[in-house]
Parts: sequence; structure tokens; C-alpha cells
Amino acid sequence: MLKKAGVAILGLGVVGGGTYQILTQNREYFKKTQGVDITVECVLEKNKERAISLGVAEEKIASSIEEVCANPNVDIVVEVIGGTGVAKLFVESALKSGKTVVTSNKELFAKHWPELEVEAKKMNAGLFFEASCVGGVPIIRTLIDGMQANKILSIKGIINGTTNYILTKMADEGWSYEEALKEAQRLGYAEFNPTADVEGFDATYKLSILSSLAFNKKICIENVYREGITAITKEDIAQGKEMGYTLKLLGIGKDTEKGVEVRVHPTFVKNSDPLASVNDSFNAVHLVGDAVGEIMLYGRGAGALPTGSAIVSDVIFAAKHNEYFYASFENNKKGNNQVKFVSDFTSKYYIRLTVKDMPGVLSKIAGLFAKSNLSIAEVKQVAISEGNAQIVIITHACNESAINKTLNKISNLEEVVGVNASIRIED
Amino acid sequence: MLKKAGVAILGLGVVGGGTYQILTQNREYFKKTQGVDITVECVLEKNKERAISLGVAEEKIASSIEEVCANPNVDIVVEVIGGTGVAKLFVESALKSGKTVVTSNKELFAKHWPELEVEAKKMNAGLFFEASCVGGVPIIRTLIDGMQANKILSIKGIINGTTNYILTKMADEGWSYEEALKEAQRLGYAEFNPTADVEGFDATYKLSILSSLAFNKKICIENVYREGITAITKEDIAQGKEMGYTLKLLGIGKDTEKGVEVRVHPTFVKNSDPLASVNDSFNAVHLVGDAVGEIMLYGRGAGALPTGSAIVSDVIFAAKHNEYFYASFENNKKGNNQVKFVSDFTSKYYIRLTVKDMPGVLSKIAGLFAKSNLSIAEVKQVAISEGNAQIVIITHACNESAINKTLNKISNLEEVVGVNASIRIED
Repeated sequence: MLKKAGVAILGLGVVGGGTYQILTQNREYFKKTQGVDITVECVLEKNKERAISLGVAEEKIASSIEEVCANPNVDIVVEVIGGTGVAKLFVESALKSGKTVVTSNKELFAKHWPELEVEAKKMNAGLFFEASCVGGVPIIRTLIDGMQANKILSIKGIINGTTNYILTKMADEGWSYEEALKEAQRLGYAEFNPTADVEGFDATYKLSILSSLAFNKKICIENVYREGITAITKEDIAQGKEMGYTLKLLGIGKDTEKGVEVRVHPTFVKNSDPLASVNDSFNAVHLVGDAVGEIMLYGRGAGALPTGSAIVSDVIFAAKHNEYFYASFENNKKGNNQVKFVSDFTSKYYIRLTVKDMPGVLSKIAGLFAKSNLSIAEVKQVAISEGNAQIVIITHACNESAINKTLNKISNLEEVVGVNASIRIED
Repeated sequence: MLKKAGVAILGLGVVGGGTYQILTQNREYFKKTQGVDITVECVLEKNKERAISLGVAEEKIASSIEEVCANPNVDIVVEVIGGTGVAKLFVESALKSGKTVVTSNKELFAKHWPELEVEAKKMNAGLFFEASCVGGVPIIRTLIDGMQANKILSIKGIINGTTNYILTKMADEGWSYEEALKEAQRLGYAEFNPTADVEGFDATYKLSILSSLAFNKKICIENVYREGITAITKEDIAQGKEMGYTLKLLGIGKDTEKGVEVRVHPTFVKNSDPLASVNDSFNAVHLVGDAVGEIMLYGRGAGALPTGSAIVSDVIFAAKHNEYFYASFENNKKGNNQVKFVSDFTSKYYIRLTVKDMPGVLSKIAGLFAKSNLSIAEVKQVAISEGNAQIVIITHACNESAINKTLNKISNLEEVVGVNASIRIED
């Protein structure tokens, strides 16, 4: 028995185009393999020529969201416009008309998930967002329908392809941050204004969504500590490599007895860590569940067809099932203050200092560490030039506040030229 | 609105015990996070003491499958007995009574899936089998509900933890096959009779299930080429490592224009391949979809709680949804002859020969390769002892039949002491 579903696509950019392509080219295949006949009933795209060049018949180009919502043949609305402007208005209109929504919009979802869910529930409409995180990798489906037996203890992910490309090139080719960024922009991996990626905002949206699902508590983006990769130097990447570490921009979430910890920042992982060999624009998410133990999912985090794959998988699921997933967050109604957050993280540290090359420096520095009860795992003098020495210190696990205080004191020593880098280590 | 579901567990061995533990310990958690109240209504286990020691109340120990099937409180029957004897009878009885079945039984599923599905469909019962492949890794859910937008082009997996443990130890510790097997048995990773694992039968069952789902065609175990790891030596593992390769027992499935190719055999992969760093008893499955590109899932392939996690995830899904998945294989009714299989695989080869250390040997061997149009990528003399030399040859891609014929001719040369190893390379 063939089920039928009509789709409207809002926005025919890169992802919208990929989605349109998969849906139209594979229609017969989906009828055969999935038992669903999915038709694109209309699109909403200002650039009519773009739509027509993709093969959309002119009469299927809607002129307004009202027209889309009023179309009785449209069951599922795919929103791939992005941002929280018209995209939000359009998604709200669609849900209010009882249409199921499938979206790739991480910013919208990170900021407005609970409100959108209220609208969806009212009309018994579905709200699907696989494409919002980690492109074609079915991490959302895994969290919703593959890991339910588990309490998720931690999530660690390379969830931004742009920064992973940049860091990979800095490590493999010895490029500077600027050189790697320029090449990423040339290849279309980074935007002309790269801020959302390189400053970690994009990863923050995704970590907010993933950790909310994983820990069953709404984690707002304001709760996520964020630090980008713009201050990373090729020297530290090379130095870390030599000491057995690979640098990645990680999104880290932990749910412990002390509270929830959520943070996005450059992180050294051991070369043997499965995340260390996730290179270029690939993404990966590592989860620990109390029953299943370690799980990792790996794949392309962006691109027309990988993200289109996630959207179309959601569309097919929506067409086949009548019972939709709604998050049942512990703090759904009571607000975020019901969740306890840890802000003074515990972490190991890689610290690089430039000091004057004279006797007694190391002893003074080690003394300040000892005074704060911070334990040093390894010290290495890595270079000398112009009368200065470079020292790298690897610490044992210590609190953020303690390490920051100590580094502050160290930077005030007259023998210390500067604290060049302080990068967290996760193992 | 809390949905209710009653479960019966058939068999309280390792996996049954893990399943019981997760279901009972997390009942309140699942009520809160999943909106389902799942109760274990009864168990079927000959060893009453085992059941009682796990905390099962005596009145919940059923005395027959008939009793389980007649129990109106049982909605979902979990079969974790294994094999195709009573397990098959019990599963059939459960389906005939309209109970939804969740099973970890790969042998049963690889051999009898279509028949079981017919029974399930008749009664509108669900048939769930996440736990049959790759333990806690949600590969089945991913294929059914995460990759539907894709035509899957290939699947490559480390899908047997026992052999992966053995091969990892041979590579890392330099142990012989026998030494590694013994340690695997001591740790409980390998059975007293290890045939099912080390000869590749277990992997064959799983590849049959996974490739059937991936390619949407029923792939019978008889169609899967099978070769185990018992002939693997530590010399070849060490030699491959030096040349940039890691040895794994892979399940490989490809769906190409020429036909379907399914095979389980020891395989060298490049050290940089994500599968190369999947060690010990960990499993991983690498998929290529036409839209999503490369995807890899990684995790524990066995164990009470990882496999229990897969079973309980299926139980929760079954409790939440009314529409069940049934495979719509192209060749469901018409029989397997509708699918074209490739048996003369194309592959690169690693070949190790012992030859007499005398002039002209290599030229003769190279001549035989050239005569069969087989192209050599690399030749390396790796050791000499007692007047004999060891030669390793890496070929370009060539057909099985051609390489076998040529190796046969080579082994008949009077200068050749023996063909020690011929191992496929996948990249």
C-alpha cells in the first residue's frame, strides 16, 4: 500500500537544490524501496531562474508562504533558508497550518526549539531536524531511536567541517591559520565572513541541540562555553603533534553528578583517539552511553547531497510514520534554572611560555604551580632564540579558575616574556 | 500520555541478563524520557536459579512458550536464545500469537528472515533485529531510518569482535594466531569451539543481513564468499604493517552495475583507512551512499549491556510506534535468482612467496604475471635464510580467477619453494 506525501521546499540554495534533486531523481526508487510516493508540490524561492534551472515547473513556484500553507497537497514543509528571520516566520506558519516541518536550520533550532515544539504538538504535526547537525550523519536519529536504552554520559564531537579543514591543513601542510582559512574560502568550505565557523558559533548551536537530546535537558546556547580557533598557531599544532596530540575544535558535553558541562573550544586529543584521525571537512561524534559504552559516528558534515540525504531521510520517515518525536526535556516548562551547570571545568592543559633563558626560571614557574596545588605532568624546553627559551608544560587535570589564576601570576614574573598558548587536553 | 508495554524475555544468558537489567533498572527513566512504561511480564529460562539470582520473581518464570504466548500482558517477546532450533519455534509461536518479536539472533535472521516476516505481517506484528548485527551500534536503525535517501553503493565492516581482538593482538604484541586465540578464550571473547568466529561464519550471517538491508535485495548466506583467519601468520601481519597496511577480517558488500559482490575474508586496509584503527573487540561499519558519501559507525559489537542496549532500543521503538518496518526486497517472492552476483572479484593482492635464492627467479615470476596481464605494483625481498629468499608482491587490481591461475603456475616453478600467503587488499 503506497503512502503519498507532498513536499514544499522553502529556499533552493545549496541544500535546497540537493534536496530537490534527491527527491525528484529517486521518486520511483523510494516508491519501490520505501513504499512512499513523495512529490515536490511547490517551492518558495525568490530567484525564479534558479528554480527553473533546477527543473522546477513555473507553476510550482509559490509566491508566498501563505500560498504554500494553503496548498492542501503539501503535507511536509522543508525549510532550508537558514537564520532566524523569515525562516522562523515560515516554519511557524507551516506548523500552524498543521504541516510537518523538516529543517536544516541549527540556529533556529538551537534558539527556538521548545516554542516550535509547542506549535507542532498543538496541530499534531512533526518537527524533524536531522539535517541541523553533522550533515548526512544520522546522529539525531541515533539519539532518538538508537540510544534510548542509555543514559548518555558524554558527547564529544568534531561538528564543524570548516574549522576541521583549517586545523587539518595547519597540521599536515604546516600552513598558518590565515593561509588555511584563505584556501578554505577558495574551496567554498568557509564563508567570506568566516566568523560563525571559526569563532565556534556554528558548533555551539549544534552542541546545544545534540546535548539537549543526549541529556534530555534543554541546553541553551548561553550555557555553552565558546572559544574559536583564530588564536591557534601552527607552532602549537606542530608541538602538540610531536608530543602525541592532535588539535581539534571539539564540542564537548558531559552529564555528571556535579552538573552539566557544555563547551566548544580547541582541544588536544591523543593521536590514538578515534577523533584524531577525523580529517579535512569530515565530522564525527563520539558518545558514551551507560549501557552501550563508546559509540562513534563519522561522515560528511555539510554539502548539498549529504545534508540533502538527512533532509530526505526525515521526509521519508515523516511520510511513513504517524507518531512523531517530541522532546520531553526535564526543564521544558520550568526553565533552564532547573539544570545545574558546571562552569569551572576540570581539564588537563598544554601551556606554551616564552621565558628569558636564565637560571632559576623553571623553578619559579614550578613553584607557582605547586603553590596553587596544580600538578605538572611534563615539562619540555622546545626552542631557544634571541636569548629566550620556549617551554611547554603539560598539566594533570586542574580547574579552569586555578590554572587561569596561576598563568596570570606567571605572566607577571619578570623572567617570563609571555604566555603564548594555553590549550585544553581531553583524553 | 504514558504508553504501556509488557515484555517476555526468552533466555536469560549473557544478553538476556543484560536486557533484563536495563529494562528493570531504567523503568522510571524510560517513563520520564520516552513516555513508555515497559514491564517484564515473564521470562522463559530453564535455569530457574539463574532467573531468581537476577531478581526475577518466581511467579514470572514461565514454564513453556505456550504460556508466554497466551499471556495477554505480553506485547513484545525478546528472543535471546540463539541458533535455529527452539529459538525458531519460539519466535514463530510468538509471531503467530500476534506478539512483536525483538531478537539478537543473527543466524536465525540470516537463514529465515523472509519466512518470519511473512508471519509477522499476517498478524501486523513487529519484527526487530538491531541486536543481531554489531551489538550496540545502531547500524540497522541507520539503514532503515537514517540512510533511506540513499542508494547504498558499498558496505565494509569489522563485524566480528573475536577475530578483531585476535588480529589486533597479533599486530600489536607479535603473538601467533594460536597465542592470541588462547588469550581470547581466556577472556571470554572466543568460545571453547571458536569455529563460528574464526572461520567467518558469524561475520557471514551479519553481512547477509546488513547487505540485504543496504542493497534492498535478499542476500542469502550461500551467496557470501567466506574465508576465515586461521591461516593468517604474524609474519604477514608484521610485513603488511611495514608496507603501510593493517590486516582485518572484513565483511565487504558492493552493489555495482555488474552485480552484487558479498564476501568475508582477511583483508589488508591502508593504515590511514578509518577501519585500520578499529582495534580489540570493537566493531565498525563503513557505508557509502550515493547522496551522503562516506559514513562510519563504530562501537562495541558484543557484550551483555551493549547488545542489551540494542534490544531495549528496539523494545522502546516497538512500544512507541504502531507502524513496523518490513523489508521490501526486490527478490522477495521471485527467489534469489533475480539477483546477479559477482563471484570473480576484482582486488589488489598481497602475495608472499618463498623462493630459492638464485639469479633469474624474479624474472620468471614477473614473466608469469605479465603473461596473464596481471600488473605488479611493488616487489620487495624481505628476508633470506637457509638459501631461500622471501618475496612480497603487491599487485594492482586483478581478477580472482586470473591471480589463482597465476599463483598455481608460480607454485609449480622449480625455483619456488612455496606460496606462503595471498591476501586481498581493499582501498
